[in-house]
Amino acid sequence: MKKTPVHKIFIHEVGPRDGLQAEKAIVPFDEKIRWIEGVCVAGVDIIQLGSFVHPDKVHQMADTDALFRHSVANKPANVILSGLVLNEKGLERGFACGVEMFCMGVSASEAHSRKNTGMGTSEALERIIPMAKLAMTAGKMVQASVQSAFGCGYEGPIAGQKVLDLVKAYLDAGIRNISLADTAGHAQPQQVEELYGAIQTLDPEVELACHFHNTYGLGLANCYAALRSGVSYFESAFGGLGGCPFTKLPAGNVPTEDLVHTLQRMGLCRDIKLSALLEVAHRVSAYFGRELPGLIVRSGSIVDFKG
Amino acid sequence: MKKTPVHKIFIHEVGPRDGLQAEKAIVPFDEKIRWIEGVCVAGVDIIQLGSFVHPDKVHQMADTDALFRHSVANKPANVILSGLVLNEKGLERGFACGVEMFCMGVSASEAHSRKNTGMGTSEALERIIPMAKLAMTAGKMVQASVQSAFGCGYEGPIAGQKVLDLVKAYLDAGIRNISLADTAGHAQPQQVEELYGAIQTLDPEVELACHFHNTYGLGLANCYAALRSGVSYFESAFGGLGGCPFTKLPAGNVPTEDLVHTLQRMGLCRDIKLSALLEVAHRVSAYFGRELPGLIVRSGSIVDFKG
Repeated sequence: MKKTPVHKIFIHEVGPRDGLQAEKAIVPFDEKIRWIEGVCVAGVDIIQLGSFVHPDKVHQMADTDALFRHSVANKPANVILSGLVLNEKGLERGFACGVEMFCMGVSASEAHSRKNTGMGTSEALERIIPMAKLAMTAGKMVQASVQSAFGCGYEGPIAGQKVLDLVKAYLDAGIRNISLADTAGHAQPQQVEELYGAIQTLDPEVELACHFHNTYGLGLANCYAALRSGVSYFESAFGGLGGCPFTKLPAGNVPTEDLVHTLQRMGLCRDIKLSALLEVAHRVSAYFGRELPGLIVRSGSIVDFKG
Repeated sequence: MKKTPVHKIFIHEVGPRDGLQAEKAIVPFDEKIRWIEGVCVAGVDIIQLGSFVHPDKVHQMADTDALFRHSVANKPANVILSGLVLNEKGLERGFACGVEMFCMGVSASEAHSRKNTGMGTSEALERIIPMAKLAMTAGKMVQASVQSAFGCGYEGPIAGQKVLDLVKAYLDAGIRNISLADTAGHAQPQQVEELYGAIQTLDPEVELACHFHNTYGLGLANCYAALRSGVSYFESAFGGLGGCPFTKLPAGNVPTEDLVHTLQRMGLCRDIKLSALLEVAHRVSAYFGRELPGLIVRSGSIVDFKG
């Protein structure tokens, strides 16, 4: 029987960005720093501190530059700080405050793209490519994503070929790290395996990333399908917080602590301190005064990972 | 790329049994009948109406015989009625009230077996085999399960070989339908693929069944792994209710409506009326006066299944 390949897995904590951007209560800078420090203590590979969106559009992201300046000076050497950039202005801000990995994306759904950025897919792509080249030329890590890659709350199904065309444009531009984002939570595991398989046919050396939402209960199932497909970068958010505010039916990200618990059960990511992730999830839950979707904070971890 | 095989899938609704046995409020007969009728309207393949346990041990199951007598006379022809039997007395009761499919099992965990039945694994196995043979001789369908097959809240990891030894004893007795039950929710998808793969090596013609709990968030991920492994019988409970009362940390079954929604997204089980399942889940939730774990009752279904 085919065993799941064991390759290096990178956990990409997007709680401070995708976890928070739909929350109306503005989280103070110091509280965010405590959460970010907790994720650093846990030993997660990459942390997405925020989005370089205009502060008037998403107030929650107004302190992104300050979070970077603080964290660049205080983080462990092996933690990579990533930021989401939407335009040239954001790129400039990111250069100025020390972003190490630039994340940028285009939605495969015309409707979602227009609601999110005011531009259609082609126009958004034309804007992204030169930004990615600038960041790569400056020696930065770049990850390009296809949002709404598995379906859209506005448009319904998204043709796989449309996703592959965007991926091909990224690859042609020299971008090596490609993420598929299931913005509306429509992905199902068979589809995940098919789409990542098709990308690997385009380029067997590509670095693959995934970003799933648990709207319909399939977040971890899709992560497993992605793992089987050779995906190595997994995006998730503490407590399972989040969802894009410009999506129909926003629902939580895959909870980081549940994802890491799952991967550790498979013998992966065992250098991450799950207890530190659980502390962060408890703190975030206490801050918002509500139970978050993650299950491991309730059940506790299965202590003996040999099983 | 390997595509998931598309074989006939049987949805086995265990809500009236495993969904309810840990609930303290005794659900009246007429209310249970309404739920069972709703599941019949949805067109689920098999419904487990109850357990032939002594009424003093699990009060919730005291009307099992009456539920069978009523349902045998009123159910659609293509719905199979199953019941869980624990001993010879239960088998007699099952014969008398019209059980069509007898489910019986042994726990691979000595500790769980003793708490659940008062017997160790070997003794429980010796008791089950003649019962299975009696039921098969009487022309009944028989499903034999290994409980705690993927780990145990009391014992921790369970050796795969222990599970395979029990399965081999079932196969040697002529039992064709074998279920693995993840009583404590410890299963992870890699392990699921490995264990079912090993059973198919023992007997490529075996009919495989699965029963997962969502304690650690992996219920649907494990169902996907089981589907990939050729499993065709999927046990689940309306609303995601349930859990064995003699388990540490009992937590919900895979919600039937979430499972069917997932499978329909993959092109399977499209003859099942999801809307009828959602009605049952809403009714069960209203009866208990609390939100149940299922997500599709909150998100609604993705209407267009082509995506």
